[in-house]
Amino acid sequence: MPSLGELSSPYSEFDDRVDALLRGSGYAEPVRLHRGRTVFEPCARPRGWEEAEFGVGAHEEAPVAGVPALRAAFAERVSGRRGGAVPPEQVLVTGGATHALSLALRAVLQAGDEVLVLSPQWPHATGLVRAAGGVAREVPVFLELGGGFGFDFAGAVEAAVTSRTRAVYFNSPNNPTGYRMDRRRLAALVELAERHDLWLIADNTYDEYDFTREGFADIAAVGAAAERTFSAHGCGTTYAMPGNRVGYLVCPPGLAAPVAAWAPYTGGPVPTAAQFAAYEALRTPREELNRRRDRAAAAWWLADSTLEVPHTDASGGLYTFLDLRAWGDGERFVRRCAELGVGLAPGRNFGARYGGWARLCFTAAPPRRVAEAIERINKIYGEGADED
Amino acid sequence: MPSLGELSSPYSEFDDRVDALLRGSGYAEPVRLHRGRTVFEPCARPRGWEEAEFGVGAHEEAPVAGVPALRAAFAERVSGRRGGAVPPEQVLVTGGATHALSLALRAVLQAGDEVLVLSPQWPHATGLVRAAGGVAREVPVFLELGGGFGFDFAGAVEAAVTSRTRAVYFNSPNNPTGYRMDRRRLAALVELAERHDLWLIADNTYDEYDFTREGFADIAAVGAAAERTFSAHGCGTTYAMPGNRVGYLVCPPGLAAPVAAWAPYTGGPVPTAAQFAAYEALRTPREELNRRRDRAAAAWWLADSTLEVPHTDASGGLYTFLDLRAWGDGERFVRRCAELGVGLAPGRNFGARYGGWARLCFTAAPPRRVAEAIERINKIYGEGADED
Repeated sequence: MPSLGELSSPYSEFDDRVDALLRGSGYAEPVRLHRGRTVFEPCARPRGWEEAEFGVGAHEEAPVAGVPALRAAFAERVSGRRGGAVPPEQVLVTGGATHALSLALRAVLQAGDEVLVLSPQWPHATGLVRAAGGVAREVPVFLELGGGFGFDFAGAVEAAVTSRTRAVYFNSPNNPTGYRMDRRRLAALVELAERHDLWLIADNTYDEYDFTREGFADIAAVGAAAERTFSAHGCGTTYAMPGNRVGYLVCPPGLAAPVAAWAPYTGGPVPTAAQFAAYEALRTPREELNRRRDRAAAAWWLADSTLEVPHTDASGGLYTFLDLRAWGDGERFVRRCAELGVGLAPGRNFGARYGGWARLCFTAAPPRRVAEAIERINKIYGEGADED
Repeated sequence: MPSLGELSSPYSEFDDRVDALLRGSGYAEPVRLHRGRTVFEPCARPRGWEEAEFGVGAHEEAPVAGVPALRAAFAERVSGRRGGAVPPEQVLVTGGATHALSLALRAVLQAGDEVLVLSPQWPHATGLVRAAGGVAREVPVFLELGGGFGFDFAGAVEAAVTSRTRAVYFNSPNNPTGYRMDRRRLAALVELAERHDLWLIADNTYDEYDFTREGFADIAAVGAAAERTFSAHGCGTTYAMPGNRVGYLVCPPGLAAPVAAWAPYTGGPVPTAAQFAAYEALRTPREELNRRRDRAAAAWWLADSTLEVPHTDASGGLYTFLDLRAWGDGERFVRRCAELGVGLAPGRNFGARYGGWARLCFTAAPPRRVAEAIERINKIYGEGADED
């Protein structure tokens, strides 16, 4: 049998590994805080749609760019926050934010081009860059930004730019740190991107989970950034229906059509009925989305006030990143937690530098269960690494 | 604004172009024979599933390899024809046959590796090879095979093998010619693949549309071929629900897990509700599938007996390839047909050598409409190219 190509999928590997550890732990109901999810009810469920409702039947293939009504609904959703109308023609319906990022990276990268990945980062980000033929250069910023004054953010990113750099990828609110970039940070990125003629690839997966009074800051609303920004959005986290696998990509003006040409080679078009379900979910009242955001913020407050492990300060998202460097090995901490029925995601999956860390998702279980899990986490931390 | 990478998507381009021509034709109800589809009723429709039915809710993300019940159902479906049980662990649920091919190519190719694409071929095949970092080498065989005795099939494929060749891709029954490979041809391919240590990538999209008494011949059933064969299957054509976008990949023993690691970078996992709908569709009685196959064969017989344009002999699939070389330019023929409200797919989309051809899908409209369209096609052919 011929040999396989080199494979890389940190994500499924670590999820499966922590799950295996939890199964072996003997706990009938382990607390799976290693997976990024919420316990909220899904905003829409599959149903039989009327043929006439969207101009295409659920069994028929939708246009490669998406069902027109859904493109228009997504466009309307981002128009307000961008302070100007985004035409539906700039929006592509995608198989989740992952597929949106895949399309954008495919379109802008030639083989060997570099992408600055602001780190720590969502585990799939580097894999997606590689799958698109690019080279991911991790630029550590989120811990430094969260660490207080004195960090030269723009200088750190600028120092990583080379002649092969084509784009900057970032996720805000950030998975795994919970750091969210404000308008001032975003403006610094835009200025740098304009000076070096780079694309901006904004992963806006957690745009509905911003805990600040300012609310989610969209980089495409900064100056002329929209003309170089690809914004990836997902409906899975926002509407608590990750199984529906629908998201969207907002492209710079005039670029949606050539980018859509990559859809067939990256997993598109999106199942038609899944697009209808996303359309329904988009009718979720603003108040309900705000209520969920507030519940996530309350879950964060509970975690923050009870965790005895040093951790990042979340101003958005679903996660905090636990600093286990004083304790010892982050991997061993994850293993010890799994033995006590608590799932955490090992830090090394979020970047090469983060082996001494672990990610906790504070919305992945009901508050009482999260609190129980944190008690066990504190106990393990207090025992120290030598007890292992 | 930075420039975009080089884009390539023959498929969406030509579909859109023929559609635009048809809109301009003034015909209120043009006959769209350029798209590959059937007029059959979908075998399943979306509905609300019970939470307990599959062990995962429709809103929840399914395992990256697919919903277990669906993997088992797909495995059972191919087990019979392979003459031995295929364990569900070898089967991955994919976003249609396209995603199945994308996964297989990703797994077996390193940058610059070559794939022999038996041609003419499904338009996306070369794009998928390129998207996986490979080089597609078209090997013209289907017209030659259909042309009668004297063609050295194995010799033609062998002559294209180089030190960089890693795999052979083929689609049988073939889109666009309707040629289907029998066990003898498949055995020749297997012998060659074994001698040069190549992977076999079988695109079995039309496995339920084989018009011969022998029935669909699965290359994985030939000798030890299963250990080097990736079989891509779709449910879109088989169950008349292309909008559902579900298919599957049968991997060589032991390889499904590493191949599944590519899923997140190629469009997976598949929406959970779409997997449920595919599971329902799989319960379609064998008699109903045979009835549809017989209706497609009848549509082919009607087309074959009325077409006055030279065309390939379909022993399966949904298409015949029209030979317009004596008439003149194939592109111009497609344009003339669109002016009279008939959509055909230009031949050059099926390979670099086929500019003088055009593809007709004989199942894309009800028989009466196909017959009307063929009358117009015959008229244009009779007028000759100079009338343009």
